[in-house]
Amino acid sequence: MNKIKPHIPKGFRDVLPSQKVIYQQVVDTIRNTFEVFGFEPLETPALEYASILEGKYGEEGEKLIYKFKDRGGRQVALRYDLTIPLSRVVAMYPALPKPLKCYHIAPVWRADKPQKGRFREFWQCDADIVGSESMLADAEVITTIYHVLKSLHFKQFTIRINNRKLLNGIAKASGIEEATIPSLLRIIDKLEQKGMQGIKDEMFEKGFKEENIKAILELFSTSDGNKIELLTIKKRFGDSALVLEGIGELEEIFSHLSSMGVDPQFYCFDFSLARGLDYYTGPIFETTVDEPQIGSITGGGRYDTLIGMFSNTDFPATGSSFGLERIITVMEELNITPSLSTTTESLVTVFSPEMQKDSLQIATELRSAGIKTEVYFKHDKLKKQLAYASNKGIPFTIIMGPDEQKDNKVILRNMVKGTQKSVSRDELVYTIKSDSSEI
Amino acid sequence: MNKIKPHIPKGFRDVLPSQKVIYQQVVDTIRNTFEVFGFEPLETPALEYASILEGKYGEEGEKLIYKFKDRGGRQVALRYDLTIPLSRVVAMYPALPKPLKCYHIAPVWRADKPQKGRFREFWQCDADIVGSESMLADAEVITTIYHVLKSLHFKQFTIRINNRKLLNGIAKASGIEEATIPSLLRIIDKLEQKGMQGIKDEMFEKGFKEENIKAILELFSTSDGNKIELLTIKKRFGDSALVLEGIGELEEIFSHLSSMGVDPQFYCFDFSLARGLDYYTGPIFETTVDEPQIGSITGGGRYDTLIGMFSNTDFPATGSSFGLERIITVMEELNITPSLSTTTESLVTVFSPEMQKDSLQIATELRSAGIKTEVYFKHDKLKKQLAYASNKGIPFTIIMGPDEQKDNKVILRNMVKGTQKSVSRDELVYTIKSDSSEI
Repeated sequence: MNKIKPHIPKGFRDVLPSQKVIYQQVVDTIRNTFEVFGFEPLETPALEYASILEGKYGEEGEKLIYKFKDRGGRQVALRYDLTIPLSRVVAMYPALPKPLKCYHIAPVWRADKPQKGRFREFWQCDADIVGSESMLADAEVITTIYHVLKSLHFKQFTIRINNRKLLNGIAKASGIEEATIPSLLRIIDKLEQKGMQGIKDEMFEKGFKEENIKAILELFSTSDGNKIELLTIKKRFGDSALVLEGIGELEEIFSHLSSMGVDPQFYCFDFSLARGLDYYTGPIFETTVDEPQIGSITGGGRYDTLIGMFSNTDFPATGSSFGLERIITVMEELNITPSLSTTTESLVTVFSPEMQKDSLQIATELRSAGIKTEVYFKHDKLKKQLAYASNKGIPFTIIMGPDEQKDNKVILRNMVKGTQKSVSRDELVYTIKSDSSEI
Repeated sequence: MNKIKPHIPKGFRDVLPSQKVIYQQVVDTIRNTFEVFGFEPLETPALEYASILEGKYGEEGEKLIYKFKDRGGRQVALRYDLTIPLSRVVAMYPALPKPLKCYHIAPVWRADKPQKGRFREFWQCDADIVGSESMLADAEVITTIYHVLKSLHFKQFTIRINNRKLLNGIAKASGIEEATIPSLLRIIDKLEQKGMQGIKDEMFEKGFKEENIKAILELFSTSDGNKIELLTIKKRFGDSALVLEGIGELEEIFSHLSSMGVDPQFYCFDFSLARGLDYYTGPIFETTVDEPQIGSITGGGRYDTLIGMFSNTDFPATGSSFGLERIITVMEELNITPSLSTTTESLVTVFSPEMQKDSLQIATELRSAGIKTEVYFKHDKLKKQLAYASNKGIPFTIIMGPDEQKDNKVILRNMVKGTQKSVSRDELVYTIKSDSSEI
């Protein structure tokens, strides 16, 4: 028979065990922090009707949706993010108690150009609060971001916070036509990537007037080179009710963050933060790290009108998304990933065919005590068995020969330290548990 | 703007928080048991090239694969199970250490007719051992099934065990042509569903000869009405080397199961077990429960030649798949699902706007101690706040009014028992932790 070439579509990848162990620990930490903040799990299907996703992600995003016709001839699509599915859920099950605080950890698909560190299938970890207009909700989402990154041992990160009301109010006050504001914000969103001249050029291209462009851009570079402060904006745009409302919301959030014990060195007001998507209506937030340069690792904000696209009732909502692959890439660069390369804690070797039964029984005892245990299947030389454990990164091996069997003992080898000792069988579980806490 | 109707494709579904909490606990138990048995996690992409999946699932399965063309015009498909992706991984990364013991918990997609309890997207939980010919590997997979179901509090189940070598050997000895054996086995696989007459009719239809059909079928109904025993088969087909090899493997497995402490009332030899897929080569196993009648909840076996379809090297392999939705359906019918309806353990109420800051601080303290905590956002009456907690199933609420604030105390309300007590703030974490162990 002809062999089938084993390969996978471009932009997709396998996560092999030694890597998946790390992914899983990071996901567990994120999930636990979400739950500590009172978020509950949610799951939605990978396939949605295409009509649910279309018209939500802007012109560029739209092109990246994986669409196809199902057997019934209906246009379906792989989910592109987790926010639209959540919005559809809220509209579909109006009886869900509010506020609905839920999290959703799942892969999404985008037919993007594959490039280093960017995949066509990647995981998002979203936490959202639906049904509350309170700035407490936004502050809680930001606090959750802070604690997730702290729990993952990030030493430096900046949660940049802005408000769409502020941006919209300033744009209006600067003479920009309301209908063109979303397009303006999408350009500003590329500031970090394209630089000041780059976004200036794009504004010209898109037909914005020179005087308007000037008025907006000068806000990004104050005379002293520092970023513009909330107070300065308040003074300059004090006539705009929308600007004042946006500032009021931000001040409220900052006050809550302080009550919730978030260290102020990890967040800041950043007027240059715009976020790319059209659906944000209030506070927006994004997290970046100084090193490595990789773009944002979290992004989110308030979207009070999005759910109304699916429902006759509007539901205020706010939330944030964590990009799992990016977070892991940063952790790898910073050398803060968990050091484990396997979940398995011990390998029970098999001394000889006659000893196999005893080895199986020891493995059974260890497993009953919850110790993650593998038992060697073949009758290889002991050296080969130990090399197998060492190669896999299994920290303990257990050896039982006829001498040990007679004395009801085993040899416990610590593969990390390269030491071994004789342990009575009754004390094996206890010894492994206490020794592994030292590793 | 026109509203978009919030709906999802037929055969798909959302898992809402109160249900997802249960799913997650079941998955955590399965995952932990897999790890205790030394299996490590693996992840593969949702999309595979169609050529990887085609020709592996039989005529009927083939029709159910979700296929479509990607932008590059290549035929891709949503994964149909987790065994073929694993086989593709083993062939693609030959350097992975063997035996490779890995598990894979993920959704799969089949364009099946939607019916009660059967979905087009459903989760499989697979554990596989690749690279070992030893019957220890099969015994370990069966032991893992046993411990997963025990950990999920199943009181009754039967792991039925058979061997394809036995079936093939008997079919040959009964005069069935070798090329038609796979078709015969697919018919036998439907015995439970169609009954004896049903499969007899189908054998006729497929062109099997009357004398051959008779010889096979009489093995299913011994004169005393009991199932046929291994010993009887050994006596009757002692001339067939293949039959003897199959019996030898089964005897070896039963001996290992005993060494590994598996209670014999939970497994048995079952000659009528055939399994539908063509790729099994040795031991096969399947788990059923007496109540409710739902078909098998696990299925698997040895597939020593499957990986060779993708690789020039053959890799012996064995494994089992757990059907998550079916397992949960059975647990619901038997009333053994976890009773939690939320992950959240406590709700901090807000007595008045002036007390909000204190409430936020209490929530921060509880969260720092790992207690899963929600804080109420609105300034509703206390009664409404308590009703919200009760409705969501949150077991503890914390109330702090000005009196309590003065004394540095809070009121801790146990929503399950309907009792409350005054607790000093320093002792709140400890009290919740110890009280919740009693619930």
